[in-house]
Amino acid sequence: MANTVVNKTAHPFERSRLESLLLGRFFYAPAFEIYSGVKGLYDFGPPGSSLQSNIIAEWRKHFIIQEHMLELDTTVITPAPVFEASGHVARFADWMVKDAKTGEVLRADHLVKNVLQARLDSDRLARDPAYQPPKEDNKKKKKASAGKAKLAAVKLPDELVAEYENILAKLDNYTGTELGELCRMHKITNPDTDNEVSEPTMFNLMFQTSIGPTGDVPGYLRPETAQGHFLNFSRLLAFNNNTLPFASAQIGRSFRNEIAPRSGLLRVREFTMAEIEHFVDPDDKSHPNFDEVRDVELDLLDRHTQESGSTKVTRTTVGAAVDQGIIANQTLGYFVARIYLFLTKIGINPKRLRFRQHMANEMAHYATDCWDAEIENSFGWTECVGCADRAAYDLTVHSNKTGHPLIVKEQLATPIVTEREVADLKMSLLVKKFGKETSAVKDIVREMDDAQLLRLKGELAQGTATVVSNDGKEYKLTPDLLTIERKTLKLGKREYTPNVIEPSFGIGRILYCLLEHSFWSREQDIERGVLSLPALVAPTKVLIVPLSSKKELFPLVAEITAKLRKAGVFSRVDDSNKSIGRRYARNDELGTPFGITVDFASVQNGTVTLRERDTTMQLIGPVDDVIATVTELVNDTIEWAEAAKRLAVYDGVQALD
Amino acid sequence: MANTVVNKTAHPFERSRLESLLLGRFFYAPAFEIYSGVKGLYDFGPPGSSLQSNIIAEWRKHFIIQEHMLELDTTVITPAPVFEASGHVARFADWMVKDAKTGEVLRADHLVKNVLQARLDSDRLARDPAYQPPKEDNKKKKKASAGKAKLAAVKLPDELVAEYENILAKLDNYTGTELGELCRMHKITNPDTDNEVSEPTMFNLMFQTSIGPTGDVPGYLRPETAQGHFLNFSRLLAFNNNTLPFASAQIGRSFRNEIAPRSGLLRVREFTMAEIEHFVDPDDKSHPNFDEVRDVELDLLDRHTQESGSTKVTRTTVGAAVDQGIIANQTLGYFVARIYLFLTKIGINPKRLRFRQHMANEMAHYATDCWDAEIENSFGWTECVGCADRAAYDLTVHSNKTGHPLIVKEQLATPIVTEREVADLKMSLLVKKFGKETSAVKDIVREMDDAQLLRLKGELAQGTATVVSNDGKEYKLTPDLLTIERKTLKLGKREYTPNVIEPSFGIGRILYCLLEHSFWSREQDIERGVLSLPALVAPTKVLIVPLSSKKELFPLVAEITAKLRKAGVFSRVDDSNKSIGRRYARNDELGTPFGITVDFASVQNGTVTLRERDTTMQLIGPVDDVIATVTELVNDTIEWAEAAKRLAVYDGVQALD
Repeated sequence: MANTVVNKTAHPFERSRLESLLLGRFFYAPAFEIYSGVKGLYDFGPPGSSLQSNIIAEWRKHFIIQEHMLELDTTVITPAPVFEASGHVARFADWMVKDAKTGEVLRADHLVKNVLQARLDSDRLARDPAYQPPKEDNKKKKKASAGKAKLAAVKLPDELVAEYENILAKLDNYTGTELGELCRMHKITNPDTDNEVSEPTMFNLMFQTSIGPTGDVPGYLRPETAQGHFLNFSRLLAFNNNTLPFASAQIGRSFRNEIAPRSGLLRVREFTMAEIEHFVDPDDKSHPNFDEVRDVELDLLDRHTQESGSTKVTRTTVGAAVDQGIIANQTLGYFVARIYLFLTKIGINPKRLRFRQHMANEMAHYATDCWDAEIENSFGWTECVGCADRAAYDLTVHSNKTGHPLIVKEQLATPIVTEREVADLKMSLLVKKFGKETSAVKDIVREMDDAQLLRLKGELAQGTATVVSNDGKEYKLTPDLLTIERKTLKLGKREYTPNVIEPSFGIGRILYCLLEHSFWSREQDIERGVLSLPALVAPTKVLIVPLSSKKELFPLVAEITAKLRKAGVFSRVDDSNKSIGRRYARNDELGTPFGITVDFASVQNGTVTLRERDTTMQLIGPVDDVIATVTELVNDTIEWAEAAKRLAVYDGVQALD
Repeated sequence: MANTVVNKTAHPFERSRLESLLLGRFFYAPAFEIYSGVKGLYDFGPPGSSLQSNIIAEWRKHFIIQEHMLELDTTVITPAPVFEASGHVARFADWMVKDAKTGEVLRADHLVKNVLQARLDSDRLARDPAYQPPKEDNKKKKKASAGKAKLAAVKLPDELVAEYENILAKLDNYTGTELGELCRMHKITNPDTDNEVSEPTMFNLMFQTSIGPTGDVPGYLRPETAQGHFLNFSRLLAFNNNTLPFASAQIGRSFRNEIAPRSGLLRVREFTMAEIEHFVDPDDKSHPNFDEVRDVELDLLDRHTQESGSTKVTRTTVGAAVDQGIIANQTLGYFVARIYLFLTKIGINPKRLRFRQHMANEMAHYATDCWDAEIENSFGWTECVGCADRAAYDLTVHSNKTGHPLIVKEQLATPIVTEREVADLKMSLLVKKFGKETSAVKDIVREMDDAQLLRLKGELAQGTATVVSNDGKEYKLTPDLLTIERKTLKLGKREYTPNVIEPSFGIGRILYCLLEHSFWSREQDIERGVLSLPALVAPTKVLIVPLSSKKELFPLVAEITAKLRKAGVFSRVDDSNKSIGRRYARNDELGTPFGITVDFASVQNGTVTLRERDTTMQLIGPVDDVIATVTELVNDTIEWAEAAKRLAVYDGVQALD
């Protein structure tokens, strides 16, 4: 029988093997391939689409349903004034440089990173000939190895190594001018041509278009779904019976016109996002369910650590991080923990997941604090979820631009009682005395604070008081013109602009990292790739494999399919005329966790075998027992070890697999 | 107790009432409303998003899962060459006219329709003062009534009435030039200004953009998801083990830059589509499951009926329509029937659903036959699903443009055996005789059909034969230069370009028509609107209503919520401090089919009441019985009458509702 101890690390990870599996099984492929493709655009095929929609379905359950969020579906096309107000037209941009001779466009920060990293690799090679440069994309790898012959074993002075490492740790913190200086100072040229590059210029990452037939209504494709939430804030608040806090959620397509996308699904021009906008009272960012996640342990990489040039994480609980002020508030901490729970539930390796705080200059223009869930993969550590405190930024700018108040009016349970001086102006007498300048006088008094009113009251008690307008004009006031009294004021309402905590998920990036974390090859045969996707997100849960295409097997196959469907388990039948070994190998590549084999003995005895993907171990039992067991396995209520107790071990494995 | 006989037609349908409900409950709202909006763009709020995703979930079950379709998710952004090849750059356009003085842009066919329809209404008013003009949108209605004072009772000559009616029946069949002629001939002006309009010009309906930082890669937003299927045809075929037929399916956003969108959700610039591309052997468009739908009865409006100026439908079965050649083939008929079953299942009124065949000039440039599922609503009959036979058009144009073959290579089970004359040319001798002209001679022989070769064979048997090239040059052939023999040929493979049958669903249009078909007002109070959405698609299935906000009720409410979740029933709690009547009224507007009321008696006796939305009738029983019953109601395994047998009728209804 099959070996039940599986060694998933017998072969080191090779991205090219995974990529060839993903392309071969049509998880996804470059879009417009037969038209020679367009960089940064990918199409999902059947297994990729299923994997994606399973991840989204779990996201919907974990966030929208469990937390009673209000779902939205807003438009992609957005008229220009919205992004002018939000600041995206002015600031949603990357720095690009041009090759001085060929005109090739490069992203400035990526250029600096790639060149300095290559120099550091070459230095390390000089210091240790056994050194292997770390993760880089295939194309780069080829170039790097081509270049290595040239660069190989160039030892750098220790101070320069330290300086390069320091630059790389702070890379997201540089302005365009600083990136330009780095290029000049460190003689960074286009590695493909060795030509110098231009000064960095800004390139706005939004796709532009024009709305309607007249050509005079400019628009953009949204680079995030967030604005759709903010613009509908008043309707959402009303839907939520005018109470805070509440969260809206949206899953949808967004677009960013990346300068030079290169890292497969990790940097694309069109992608599916899932975004939450949690609207909260700025004076109270506690979260009612925080205690449920208080003990979740995370790897944190805070701002100060990075600014000191280090990338060493600290293992801590969310509770401790919030208590110590590392994470700014409970709501932000709550979502950081919920993001962690979601990602690990769908199969992300928790050891390759960290939360990194943004540095001051790196932060998006609208955020006051931000923690990225970064997942390690063969390209490095990649931001897959952002969790930002956008404060009142967005609601304020849209409210200012449109004049439409985006605020909460809170009826206070106990009114706020205050005492203060109140001036009562006798308008008719004032007009008689000051004529056209009455309103100037009125404004001076209205703008006085409590202390100023008290002082004025004192002066009036002595007869006459002189007040001065902002432009220096003096007016004499006498007690007949106004009285000032101390009054008790009750404030029954409070008006404020809510703050927003925004967890924002890049579904494609998460999906790609999950594929890397799930991929391995069988110890005895490196060509036999396996995707160990959890049943929760696997495109197909159970593969039904009739051992022959003879008609005798049809009724049993149909019966099993129907019973699985009734149990809510998504299965597929593979009745192709391939050998059973090839059919199982195909489904290992597709990540199908379980297989049910139907043969002539099944028809005679009413028994079928159940195969587990990772171990290739097989069990045998009556049809209904196998269906009950596999249903529990798929729903994650039992593990394989328990299944092996319920059903008999099948000995014919080697012959079949 | 409540009246169980419900009169849903006590009040005639008024669109403005429905619209105010939909806006008030945030089913959807004009996008960018606080920025004064952009025509043709709408955002879905919480109930609209849920309704939409329930419709999509049922679509996925009905089509993708039940028919084992291959799901895809392809990009919106598309480089220009794709739509140049597909013909969209040249022909995906509408005719627009401009107001000669104001420059306002109008869609030419809509202008003709609205003006002639208004004249016919005015004529009918003259003939019958009690006449009410039929469905038009609100804005128009106001204008029409304003205009009616002016136009009222203008009787037209009988011939002109007939001519207008004939034009309206054929409206989709006119070219731009013809629309221009109609405007001149019938003095059709802009009804808002009475100004003349310009000659119709074409306006391409695709949104344009630019891909990447250089500005030299033009692109479009897809106006349909279909091209994404076609471009991935080879990968899909491989995924399906290289066998036909198979169908791919995709649900996603598409974009059309409509000239003057006016009819709410029915004509928008951004929308969700669900599209199927069923790839089939052009020589065999039978469908294996056709017998399952053969007896489905439909209202059909065929091409010939429309071309004769009539819009009278014929009631017939799909089987009869295919047998009589009204619907071109089984696969097209199969999908027409499946579309009918889907639409009626989610709640579309079958009496307001017809299938209309496209007329010759109306057909999209890629289609050879097309049937639209049209749903009647207050704007008229609206195309909500198209079902087109695109033949081999798309695969052929992309294959020609790219050089990438998009074909099926079929291994024939029994090779095709043919006998034919085969020429064997003695090349060396031919070269010796004809030198540089050998290839011309070769081409002449190669291009000969069987009969020509047979004749040549006869001539050679007599000594010499003369053959003539296309440009008239003569060559003398002798038996030493070639032999011609009859041979038996076996063809083991067949290569062909598949045909495509495309059902294409506009989800937003279906959703809007469903809302109209579901809306009514209570007989006793027109202000109390109800949306009788089927439980299958209703945003919330069960509303749990605690009668008081006292803590004593919390545990029971939590218990019911948990038990419903376990039973797979999506519920919500409304614990706002509104009266129970107002809470139920709100949920009638939200289309929630069932309500469970929890009060202090519930805590004491363990019983709760179950309310049905349409009748407002209430039943009472132990918690578990009510949950079991409502689960069956939601899953549509029992009807309310059956529920009323299982549980006791509750008498306190009037007090509560």
